[in-house]
Amino acid sequence: MEASHLIWTEIDKKEVYRSRVLSVWDARCRSPEGKTGVFTIIDSSDWVIVVPVIKTRRGPQFLMVRQWRHGSRELSLEFPGGVLEKGEDSEAGAARELEEETAHRAGRLTVLGTMSPNPAIMSNRVHFYYAEDLVPLEGQNLDEDEFLDAEFIPPGELIRGMGKPPYVHALTAAALALYLGR
Amino acid sequence: MEASHLIWTEIDKKEVYRSRVLSVWDARCRSPEGKTGVFTIIDSSDWVIVVPVIKTRRGPQFLMVRQWRHGSRELSLEFPGGVLEKGEDSEAGAARELEEETAHRAGRLTVLGTMSPNPAIMSNRVHFYYAEDLVPLEGQNLDEDEFLDAEFIPPGELIRGMGKPPYVHALTAAALALYLGR
Repeated sequence: MEASHLIWTEIDKKEVYRSRVLSVWDARCRSPEGKTGVFTIIDSSDWVIVVPVIKTRRGPQFLMVRQWRHGSRELSLEFPGGVLEKGEDSEAGAARELEEETAHRAGRLTVLGTMSPNPAIMSNRVHFYYAEDLVPLEGQNLDEDEFLDAEFIPPGELIRGMGKPPYVHALTAAALALYLGR
Repeated sequence: MEASHLIWTEIDKKEVYRSRVLSVWDARCRSPEGKTGVFTIIDSSDWVIVVPVIKTRRGPQFLMVRQWRHGSRELSLEFPGGVLEKGEDSEAGAARELEEETAHRAGRLTVLGTMSPNPAIMSNRVHFYYAEDLVPLEGQNLDEDEFLDAEFIPPGELIRGMGKPPYVHALTAAALALYLGR
């Protein structure tokens, strides 16, 4: 479809802040009508989120992690995932995060999709994977500043529970939508 | 459930950057085991997203908007929504964004849930509403720097299409999960 009347072009950008995990830019852009505006844009590494499913006698169960989130300052029960390492392929990152956070290895990883976690202000993407044929490993292998519990959750509980604590992570809800539409 | 072994406490925080739309903080926090770490946290206004549904002879249709996103630098076809104004109630914001972006008024708005768009680094929340009994108004009432097209999309197309362009906005997928689980 013809959408050129919606497309902006970037004129230039200036870095205004940088930390270990992100950088903030002022981007000067030209509107479809030729007007100029300045927009705040946050650059950060891509993320990956994994929907791990095990088959049990009571039906499928999601393998999820409960952890403290420093931005929202609350506990969240969510799908495992994290930040891709420099140069890391998204599938390798999905396998790594699943192993580190849940101590399970996936026999099969399938792409569910790629989205922008926050396209209004963030430039990065989040890659979603479906993980099956899970094999338990020896134990979690967490980063030094990670503390989390892995738990099995029935899909119906998550579907009904999303949007209320502890199911408060919007990207877990996005992953659930991709899982339901797969 | 007992989760005190997961909970961090904030010791202090320092503002390191501020723009018109967000502020960035270095927050020094104490881990459950008593270790100290510094985390980047972004404060910004709360957001609202609306899932507007009209009934047609071909079944229900979502009313969605196609617009340019400056963070991801791409077009996105997504549910209407935006930033709450200072002091604005989330339901009032949902009604306002729906009217401004789609030129439709909702006869009924129902809460779908509240989540953290990005709880690892952002402190804000996003409120989701389901909008029914839509009445068309005179025309869009967009912000000066907004350019967008409103379109009707069958739910099945969105469910199958999420995670591929133009369905790349993760918060639209999160809203879809809440709609499907309502």
